[in-house]
Amino acid sequence: MRATVIYGAGDVRVETVPDPKLVEPTDVVLRVVRSCICGSDLWPYADMKPSEHGRRIGHEFLGVVEETGADVTTLKKGDLAVAPFVWSDNTCEFCREGLQTSCLHGGGWGAKGVDGGQGEAVRVPQADGTLVKLPDTEDAGLLASFLTLSDVFSTGHHAAVKARVRPGQNVTVIGDGAVGLCAVLAAKRLGADRIVLMGRHRARTDLGREFGATDVVAERGEEGIEKVRELTNGRGTHAVLECVGTKAAFEMGVGVVRAGGEVSRVGLPQYEEGPIGVGVFRRNVTVTGGVAPARHYIPELLPDVLDGKYQPGKVFDRTIDVEGVPDGYRAMAAREALKVLIEP
Amino acid sequence: MRATVIYGAGDVRVETVPDPKLVEPTDVVLRVVRSCICGSDLWPYADMKPSEHGRRIGHEFLGVVEETGADVTTLKKGDLAVAPFVWSDNTCEFCREGLQTSCLHGGGWGAKGVDGGQGEAVRVPQADGTLVKLPDTEDAGLLASFLTLSDVFSTGHHAAVKARVRPGQNVTVIGDGAVGLCAVLAAKRLGADRIVLMGRHRARTDLGREFGATDVVAERGEEGIEKVRELTNGRGTHAVLECVGTKAAFEMGVGVVRAGGEVSRVGLPQYEEGPIGVGVFRRNVTVTGGVAPARHYIPELLPDVLDGKYQPGKVFDRTIDVEGVPDGYRAMAAREALKVLIEP
Repeated sequence: MRATVIYGAGDVRVETVPDPKLVEPTDVVLRVVRSCICGSDLWPYADMKPSEHGRRIGHEFLGVVEETGADVTTLKKGDLAVAPFVWSDNTCEFCREGLQTSCLHGGGWGAKGVDGGQGEAVRVPQADGTLVKLPDTEDAGLLASFLTLSDVFSTGHHAAVKARVRPGQNVTVIGDGAVGLCAVLAAKRLGADRIVLMGRHRARTDLGREFGATDVVAERGEEGIEKVRELTNGRGTHAVLECVGTKAAFEMGVGVVRAGGEVSRVGLPQYEEGPIGVGVFRRNVTVTGGVAPARHYIPELLPDVLDGKYQPGKVFDRTIDVEGVPDGYRAMAAREALKVLIEP
Repeated sequence: MRATVIYGAGDVRVETVPDPKLVEPTDVVLRVVRSCICGSDLWPYADMKPSEHGRRIGHEFLGVVEETGADVTTLKKGDLAVAPFVWSDNTCEFCREGLQTSCLHGGGWGAKGVDGGQGEAVRVPQADGTLVKLPDTEDAGLLASFLTLSDVFSTGHHAAVKARVRPGQNVTVIGDGAVGLCAVLAAKRLGADRIVLMGRHRARTDLGREFGATDVVAERGEEGIEKVRELTNGRGTHAVLECVGTKAAFEMGVGVVRAGGEVSRVGLPQYEEGPIGVGVFRRNVTVTGGVAPARHYIPELLPDVLDGKYQPGKVFDRTIDVEGVPDGYRAMAAREALKVLIEP
């Protein structure tokens, strides 16, 4: 089959690799119907050291079951199913608590003999625990929205859940990337009153408004903090959903959060230490968030996506086939595309 | 009256100062019956720059109402009442949310013309909002426990509440000072299953065991982290109550917390930046806590103290009169005394 391999910064190739085969009786082989490129894929695309053998990449996909291992009970050949961005047994103590990203028997796509998602097919380990069956559909919009459950919408939702967004609250979303826009949608879904989106790319913030943002603040740093405070009677917002991952974004989060509020991070931190001193302490600000357990959220989010009430799939603004993946990376890195959908 | 004034590091004096008088109609003048020295008072005692005029100090006290302003409705002359370690109107938007430490019209003791608590009397601003009436008693043990509601027990409780300690959970308490021991008691009260106390002073950890600690770990740093992980099947504990305030203590907290858990800080951070990078993010660790809104917690904690079920007053291991305050500071700084009670 054809699949994506990353060899270093700026060096993404599509190659012919061995077709996936069942290895464990708990495996499924899935033919990928939709996949995509993640903002987090752009980190290795920006700074990965050159590697002789490269590694598979891609962690968001849905597809049709082609083969099932002997122990698989919840899926059969022909089922449409979505994979969260890590695989997990869904039975260990962490999975039972809804923290499948810390599964004792799980792992990541593209690592240690496991296929990446940006290819024609994937061997899915722990298939009963990992995959969530979807209703059959060929509706392109619905498939795109289903695909966001794999990561980007679930991640936005995680930001909002960890920040305890609830009806009547004010929320700031930092970042107008696909995760930030999905965080707006998630905050709206949880009943947030005012949603301030901090971002400066007009096409993206326009989609943010469509998703529920009531205010857009293009300014950054101290100026951005000042703007959000002006909008909130000087107080800041109860919740801050930090969807970028840079230290500057986190510092803005601390600057715009209301006393007693939460700064919830879902952008992979590109820093080791952050400002959590007396200023954060005196105001009882909580720093929360982390890697989203998408598997935990999919059953809750699926019905609202299925009935079209929420259409997170609108974050995809370009569609390519598998051979077009290298150019998809280039387009996202150049900010020509918000999020690139792959139809292998 | 006689009151304590701090002039710089190591320079605490007891002086004759003007008797407090009503200034605002919402004031009360309280004759102090019990007061004490806080671990946080030891920070300026360690590093305050010399000051010509000095400043009043002390923020934990209870006493008898001597005079009430015209607008005071909940207290009358002769009432026994306890003051939280900040004063607040208890009616603003933050107070109504239970975050009286961020009161829009409140402030600290010993600042801007307000008396400190380590003296014979105090003018209490916003008395209806600040003070909580206590049942009359001359029982020394009960008075000591009532006094801990002012700060140290409420602060330990805040650590446990922010860490969402609940029945069946494992908890690590970092620090065997008075706040740490009260955090043990608070965690026990909220139903924690296993309580690991990290501390190395035998007399203190013995009281910690009496308060509910099931394990004591004397080791620090990597060695301490290893010990706690050994006790918890390698996982760490759901909640960590960090009651010291140093960066090393916070780092231990991050090291011993379980994935998905909370590190709750109530020791004033002696650092501006802390480790909240990928390691914290990947494990969905939340960093929470802050300055405890004691006023919010006192009504909840009071009944359990009143009936003797919890005796946080046991943290006091030395009693002095007001003239003995300078020596009290010396004894606490030298770790001769755990916490010093003042009977002015």
